[in-house]
Amino acid sequence: MSEENNCKEKEVSETEFPVRYAETDAMGVVHHAAYIVYFEEARSQYMRDRSKDYALIEKSGYRLPVTDVKVRYVGSLTYGDRVNIRAWITENRSRKITFNYEIRSSANSRILVSGSTSHTWTTLDGKVTRAPSLWLNF
Amino acid sequence: MSEENNCKEKEVSETEFPVRYAETDAMGVVHHAAYIVYFEEARSQYMRDRSKDYALIEKSGYRLPVTDVKVRYVGSLTYGDRVNIRAWITENRSRKITFNYEIRSSANSRILVSGSTSHTWTTLDGKVTRAPSLWLNF
Amino acid sequence: MSEENNCKEKEVSETEFPVRYAETDAMGVVHHAAYIVYFEEARSQYMRDRSKDYALIEKSGYRLPVTDVKVRYVGSLTYGDRVNIRAWITENRSRKITFNYEIRSSANSRILVSGSTSHTWTTLDGKVTRAPSLWLNF
Amino acid sequence: MSEENNCKEKEVSETEFPVRYAETDAMGVVHHAAYIVYFEEARSQYMRDRSKDYALIEKSGYRLPVTDVKVRYVGSLTYGDRVNIRAWITENRSRKITFNYEIRSSANSRILVSGSTSHTWTTLDGKVTRAPSLWLNF
Repeated sequence: MSEENNCKEKEVSETEFPVRYAETDAMGVVHHAAYIVYFEEARSQYMRDRSKDYALIEKSGYRLPVTDVKVRYVGSLTYGDRVNIRAWITENRSRKITFNYEIRSSANSRILVSGSTSHTWTTLDGKVTRAPSLWLNF
Repeated sequence: MSEENNCKEKEVSETEFPVRYAETDAMGVVHHAAYIVYFEEARSQYMRDRSKDYALIEKSGYRLPVTDVKVRYVGSLTYGDRVNIRAWITENRSRKITFNYEIRSSANSRILVSGSTSHTWTTLDGKVTRAPSLWLNF
Repeated sequence: MSEENNCKEKEVSETEFPVRYAETDAMGVVHHAAYIVYFEEARSQYMRDRSKDYALIEKSGYRLPVTDVKVRYVGSLTYGDRVNIRAWITENRSRKITFNYEIRSSANSRILVSGSTSHTWTTLDGKVTRAPSLWLNF
Repeated sequence: MSEENNCKEKEVSETEFPVRYAETDAMGVVHHAAYIVYFEEARSQYMRDRSKDYALIEKSGYRLPVTDVKVRYVGSLTYGDRVNIRAWITENRSRKITFNYEIRSSANSRILVSGSTSHTWTTLDGKVTRAPSLWLNF
């Protein structure tokens, strides 16, 4: 039961914001590490959209550290573009969550960067635990 | 004439976005260097609000590198806050611009961080030049 | 022939530097995106160690953008630690390279973070090309 | 007495490391916010050089948040350069410290970026306090 995947449907959150100049690099495009921060921002928005802000989750004594990151880059964003990110959950178990992400320029439907992050629920002192009830009672 | 300060009134741009977890540090608050990136984002928004996107300025052959940064920190933002930044121009000469900034949490009217950035107009290869006509014809 | 894997042995570069406070986050540990920058720094050092500086590679008209990143996090670094990274090549084909990485605290032999990055050789305007002779003539 | 400036001589710490590609921006040079992180790294090194690691200071219950940053940019570093930073204390009072910094490329004696950061001693919960004895007994 605790290992059930509570991921019934593809509920997607979408967030958009402008590329920051500080995120570009000498190749003239967004640096590849910045997309991991974009993923995090999309994950934060996913939680805010459902009134499950990660800030509240931490205040209630839980953390959700990252255990795995996978990213595939097929194109790039540049300064002047708006980042469009779609995020959804593909795995939602009692101790583990996996989010998937697709990043586009808001001007275009082509996926530029995609990836996933997996996370483990822990207490504030880092012990693995079960997801907080706040989270499970979606 | 070229040294005239074309700064007639206090036109303010305001921008808001959530604090990113990546911007916090081990003190539990937003790292002091992140506010320089917030300033830049507010400056970008100031230009976008006036259809003078910095991306277009670069495409037309101009750059606006930073020559001076001053920041005063009297409080801090944390994850869960929304950053509210107000930006305006205090000096607008043919070769130099100065922006001022005030940062608050969107939930509160108290100024947490304030500062300024000065900039010189240059060509793409870094030679100091006069502001582009696109910019002067506000 | 062009698809031969020129990766004969495990030549490892090791690099060390202190964790920067700016790299920590509100969990009190190094933010997960910072490790991607550590990987890049280890890759740069790998090239410098062999007099194949990436700066020179770019000057000679080539780029090596990232196409895939994979990271596995089993522990974390904190401010006060020294980052120790080992990097080596696991795949070296005419159009593609894969680096692997292991990150430890210099005080400890336990692997905290490991991962890989894959790259494609391109010209400065982004067309996929064969590796520069500078690189192949190791 | 508590307001005495305990800054008798110009003791300088010098630190060097390579520019990271992630620190560059689309202008092809190091982004201006990265120099604030360089300042912090030089400050950390200054403390390590005197066996007063900031990590130890935090463990003993003190923090040293930044209250003011001033930076002047007259040139820039690019990827391939080594950052050379000199840091020294210009003001050392019971509740306040000011560090000054000069940044050069290691290949050249010209100052590219200079600046200062001021700091207040606080307890872990943010109350202004007097410098720890560890720090005063230099």
